[in-house]
Amino acid sequence: MKKEDHKVRTWLRENRVRGIKLLQKIVQENSTRGNESSTQAVIIEKCRQLGLKLDIWEIGGNELKNHPAFFCDRKDFEGNPNLVAVLKGAGGGKSLILNGHIDVVPVGDETSWRHDPFSGHIEDGKMYGRGATDMKGGNVALLLAIESIIASEIKLKGDIIFQSVIEEESGGAGSLAAVLRGYRADGAIIPEPTNMKLFPKQQGSMWFRITVPGKAAHGGTRYEGTSAIEKAVLVIQRLQQLENQRNAKIKDPLYKDIPIPVPINIGKITSGEWPSSVPDTAIIEGRMGVAPEETMESAQLEMESCLQELGEQDGWLRENPLKIEWFGARWLPGSLEGDHPLMTELTNSFKEVMGRTPVIEASPWGTDGGILSNVGDTPVVVFGPGVTEMAHDANEYIVLDDLFAASEIIALTILNWCGVDDCN
Amino acid sequence: MKKEDHKVRTWLRENRVRGIKLLQKIVQENSTRGNESSTQAVIIEKCRQLGLKLDIWEIGGNELKNHPAFFCDRKDFEGNPNLVAVLKGAGGGKSLILNGHIDVVPVGDETSWRHDPFSGHIEDGKMYGRGATDMKGGNVALLLAIESIIASEIKLKGDIIFQSVIEEESGGAGSLAAVLRGYRADGAIIPEPTNMKLFPKQQGSMWFRITVPGKAAHGGTRYEGTSAIEKAVLVIQRLQQLENQRNAKIKDPLYKDIPIPVPINIGKITSGEWPSSVPDTAIIEGRMGVAPEETMESAQLEMESCLQELGEQDGWLRENPLKIEWFGARWLPGSLEGDHPLMTELTNSFKEVMGRTPVIEASPWGTDGGILSNVGDTPVVVFGPGVTEMAHDANEYIVLDDLFAASEIIALTILNWCGVDDCN
Repeated sequence: MKKEDHKVRTWLRENRVRGIKLLQKIVQENSTRGNESSTQAVIIEKCRQLGLKLDIWEIGGNELKNHPAFFCDRKDFEGNPNLVAVLKGAGGGKSLILNGHIDVVPVGDETSWRHDPFSGHIEDGKMYGRGATDMKGGNVALLLAIESIIASEIKLKGDIIFQSVIEEESGGAGSLAAVLRGYRADGAIIPEPTNMKLFPKQQGSMWFRITVPGKAAHGGTRYEGTSAIEKAVLVIQRLQQLENQRNAKIKDPLYKDIPIPVPINIGKITSGEWPSSVPDTAIIEGRMGVAPEETMESAQLEMESCLQELGEQDGWLRENPLKIEWFGARWLPGSLEGDHPLMTELTNSFKEVMGRTPVIEASPWGTDGGILSNVGDTPVVVFGPGVTEMAHDANEYIVLDDLFAASEIIALTILNWCGVDDCN
Repeated sequence: MKKEDHKVRTWLRENRVRGIKLLQKIVQENSTRGNESSTQAVIIEKCRQLGLKLDIWEIGGNELKNHPAFFCDRKDFEGNPNLVAVLKGAGGGKSLILNGHIDVVPVGDETSWRHDPFSGHIEDGKMYGRGATDMKGGNVALLLAIESIIASEIKLKGDIIFQSVIEEESGGAGSLAAVLRGYRADGAIIPEPTNMKLFPKQQGSMWFRITVPGKAAHGGTRYEGTSAIEKAVLVIQRLQQLENQRNAKIKDPLYKDIPIPVPINIGKITSGEWPSSVPDTAIIEGRMGVAPEETMESAQLEMESCLQELGEQDGWLRENPLKIEWFGARWLPGSLEGDHPLMTELTNSFKEVMGRTPVIEASPWGTDGGILSNVGDTPVVVFGPGVTEMAHDANEYIVLDDLFAASEIIALTILNWCGVDDCN
């Protein structure tokens, strides 16, 4: 073990209580959409104490709102800033973005929680609370990694660009704003809850709404109408076929253990108002997964062509076309080659800390990685503590040991990636 | 033409204005469910003037509510009575029930109406208003037929039992109450809007609700859940098969021009709350048509067995069974042989008035005829002015010429069915 590695790992092990207190403080602040500021304030104060160069701003403006990757239905962002905090390097090293989102999803049914959703309650080595896993735990892993280096008085060559962004859960406007503000780097780590796996690729996703027309009639003479539900069944079957076709094409070994790499999920259907009437409209809503190497546009086009084809084959739909809308939030896919140097560094650090080879997969969901890589041209690996299943659930928790292990792995990766200044 | 036939037809032709005014008065009263009394009051006063023996009562009581044909979600019937008004015959003739319901369906979207829904507005030989067709027009045809006989000073042998009942649109509790009060006869005519066709058979119907279980999961890992929508598609397909099987068995020539004699209508489906979640429940609601010769119970059993079979074939449904409920309103089917004397009399009267043979079919919807025939053991033919399509629609109207033609046909049928007393 190199001298610096030893220093940061020792510091992290000796400062667990400090790290847990920081996480607890952050988890105890509610940062659901529109309420991010109080949590952001804790992060800002931490970065100020660490001596990082702070850039705090409220996102917005036409460049952002007119950007093709901007999908956001939030009216304004006033009072809930983005934060970028830079640890300037001495020069001559590679830069690294450490990106975490500060927003959390709603708590859902509060009665399903055993403790207050913002309790930060600790039990059996786990801390509970909305956002503990997704992804305040990851954010603290980043901050502790940075602090371990600063506290160990190590001077880096490359810059560390720490980002605490809003709006990830709603489509990534916060990270997009950071990219448009000029923040790019030679690599990026996003500690989303991957359960300590490395995700060089991430599935993108987008929502669709298909409106299926029918013609009303009395149920007793239903042959005088056209059932929107019957036509909706044709649409669902065609989407199932499309899902099969799209997934049959995916040969990437990262997906070898994933039954449906890029699912088309039909999440919702509503049709009809009265049992004895023929329904005149059906509305299907769902989520289309986008493969890491694919563009959103080509995936959209594929679904649109497939439904167009269905429309041509069905007499009723030919005269009464389906309407397809792409609405709501969306996440760009991300793809990094498996032998990219950032993967190599992370893998090595992982082995050093964990004593085993990491599992490498593709994520089944989108992250802000798609924006950093596609728009910001920054190579991204998603890697962090916490398990996906807990992420949006009641009684969300993070295993604290994983958080500290991830922090050690990230700290070692920073040292190797950014490089240690010799004059240190 | 017989002397009495001539008299009643002449009276009806000379008293069109009187008939139209009566209809207008009745159409202008709102008799939606729970508001039947003011319309009923006009009918009662008319029957009193005609010298009929009135039986006015509020329905209810345990005999009614515990009857197997009672399906009603109305809390109480207070203030909105049923009416039976009898024209006693001299004896020695056949009795005839003339049954019409006084309740009308809601007006729906008022802005779709060109006039007030209770205007009774007349234009181009049509009277407009909720219930004009379904079935205040038919009721007035009955009353005018009775009045034409009384005004012509014709004495009948058999009794005429005029019934103005509530609750037909919600499952027939009014007619059931009349049957249970003892009103039965040798025949019955119900002037529902058949567009002047004779319906010796009527389709029954009942509502079903099928709850389809699934298992929630994130859409990106949808293979970890079970889509209730996908399972609902299996249910819909199986119901389509069942509909085919059931209709293939129907060989009755009355159905020769009807594409689907007894449809299974899927009227409603709701499933899912979020586009990117796997839906954990789907609810399907619909209307099952019941063939005239079938019982409600055997039709229910057929659907239940068919879904049971599906459950046995599908691994998920075997462990997580479908739930089937029979809920809401229902109408018993009705069936009269084509050569029944009442059919013969109605056909003859029709020919005399219209100069052509009537169209004879089976109704695609239920009426109170199912209760009169199944529970009251009274042979029923459904025949009346007005077109089905208008029945529950905005701008409902009745063609006044049809109303008077139906009234003439019914008057002649009464004379022949009940018989004219020779001492007349």
